[in-house]
Amino acid sequence: MREDTLIGGIGMGYRIGMAVGVTYVIAGLFGPDGRLLRREKRPTVRSSSSELLAEVADIARDLLAQEGVDNGRLDAVGIGLPGFIESDTGLVTSANLPFGEFPVASRLRHLLDVPITVHNDVKMTVYGESLRGAGRGYAYVLGVTLGTGMSSTWISNGKLHEGNGGLAGEIGHIRFPDISYACGCGMIGCLETVVSSSGIARQAREGLAAGWIGPLADRFPLELRDELTAIDVLEAYHAGDAFAAHLFQRTAKWLARALVPTIAMLSPDLIIIGGGVAAAGEVFFEALKTAVADGLHPLYRERLLIVPSQLGEDAGVYGSAEYAVNAMPMKV
Amino acid sequence: MREDTLIGGIGMGYRIGMAVGVTYVIAGLFGPDGRLLRREKRPTVRSSSSELLAEVADIARDLLAQEGVDNGRLDAVGIGLPGFIESDTGLVTSANLPFGEFPVASRLRHLLDVPITVHNDVKMTVYGESLRGAGRGYAYVLGVTLGTGMSSTWISNGKLHEGNGGLAGEIGHIRFPDISYACGCGMIGCLETVVSSSGIARQAREGLAAGWIGPLADRFPLELRDELTAIDVLEAYHAGDAFAAHLFQRTAKWLARALVPTIAMLSPDLIIIGGGVAAAGEVFFEALKTAVADGLHPLYRERLLIVPSQLGEDAGVYGSAEYAVNAMPMKV
Repeated sequence: MREDTLIGGIGMGYRIGMAVGVTYVIAGLFGPDGRLLRREKRPTVRSSSSELLAEVADIARDLLAQEGVDNGRLDAVGIGLPGFIESDTGLVTSANLPFGEFPVASRLRHLLDVPITVHNDVKMTVYGESLRGAGRGYAYVLGVTLGTGMSSTWISNGKLHEGNGGLAGEIGHIRFPDISYACGCGMIGCLETVVSSSGIARQAREGLAAGWIGPLADRFPLELRDELTAIDVLEAYHAGDAFAAHLFQRTAKWLARALVPTIAMLSPDLIIIGGGVAAAGEVFFEALKTAVADGLHPLYRERLLIVPSQLGEDAGVYGSAEYAVNAMPMKV
Repeated sequence: MREDTLIGGIGMGYRIGMAVGVTYVIAGLFGPDGRLLRREKRPTVRSSSSELLAEVADIARDLLAQEGVDNGRLDAVGIGLPGFIESDTGLVTSANLPFGEFPVASRLRHLLDVPITVHNDVKMTVYGESLRGAGRGYAYVLGVTLGTGMSSTWISNGKLHEGNGGLAGEIGHIRFPDISYACGCGMIGCLETVVSSSGIARQAREGLAAGWIGPLADRFPLELRDELTAIDVLEAYHAGDAFAAHLFQRTAKWLARALVPTIAMLSPDLIIIGGGVAAAGEVFFEALKTAVADGLHPLYRERLLIVPSQLGEDAGVYGSAEYAVNAMPMKV
């Protein structure tokens, strides 16, 4: 439990934030002072949209009951989930949850009788990190998430920037002429094909095929190579594999290319890097900081901080709870 | 005179916007409905800081007198000038005007007895374009100014983004490994050394030295080559010089490299390109649009507009008047 000071909610009621993932639902009840009072983690029910919604509503009621909070004192529930939320209609489409053009917010509002916000889970994670984690106290925060895919989130004075068409943040799909991998989006050369955990695994497989030797090569002979993941590359790095170190450093340099112009345009206080690739730690962050500094005027280098995320799997719970209180769009 | 509808000021009083340039002061009196009522352009008095301030105050009083507006109905004066304005102290340092750590706003406040804002002239030009020119009606506007130097300005819902340390927008000083010119800032390889009017002249001189032929080469034999400017390159382009066309296209591609990552991160509605290089028109804009589209997912390409600035030399007058009314920092 974090002993945070409140952000933006003194004198308000209770709020709940939930990260509805493919495997687990993680939920948190926050007090009027913004503190996380109780946390709940349950396997995600994926049998149908209505059963998943019923589970979400149950978790909310249970959290209130366990803390002895009257339902009427709940102000809002914020949900983060992996999917696309149409900004006009609020319809949710999620390839990995049983939602296809489904009105999650309005249905939940019916079940719980409080305002509901629904937003993309990665955005909510960065929003939580920005307001309650690594970004606490900073006005201008750029979050970069490097998981299976990659994306960015710009938060200015606590406000999540959505952009034209809600498209802000898809930096995974900018193209560089010297990247030649086919991307799942249908294009060739997207940054995400290298700067992501899948991209690191891809680069590792290619490097091994080209003859790199070391712990990673020993562990993954040709017949096992398809199973290689970014976690294996990280383990090999910790086992002293020079090639694994090189992969994280090269990936950091590619990321820097995308960050440098935006840093100059926005002058953020802080860049928070989250997701699986950030777990590589120093080898990745040092290469990233060096490459970013190399591309910028010293005035930026002196001010800008580049840090890992702090809240772990709870970031989305903090983020969706804050969003439910602070944000207006799609609150029904 | 523009017949604009009002932006953000119904029921308020009159306001004055001024662009204090090295050669001219251009000033405009705006009515309570936001319309430009009267405009004045005078040579800049550069003999001393106090004489320049007296001139600025005179222009303001004259504008009011000519329109028969009582001084008491003036709400605010906004000034844009070429220089650095320290955000804490409001001190202005300008290499080309007689201001060295000079408190322009507080002195003018003393002379005119209304709230004064002072901001960088290029930012005020883009702010004016965003609110009253090419960007009217758009929420997310990225302005790029390509003059002797280059810079960017991000305006979100009418709010000018300053960034950490007021450093947002110095995209001229991001470095690319394949640019090798020394920049005035002390670094090597800054984008501004190629993407600016001075950069176009530099590339032209280098190309002529390398043996390019055509109208530009004919007009600038070796002994005249130092005098070559971007305007000459533009004239050569209009005279059918293939090398001149190539220079604008290559410059557009360099600019696209800096724009693509930021477009993906922010998803602007509109990018406004202003400054001397934008005068090249179609040859530059078509190459820019193609290079930007090539780097982005089709979803962005379909939505994003890239347009030239519209307000000409009055943009800064509109911008500083709007800023005086809308913005709070440094208003004394």
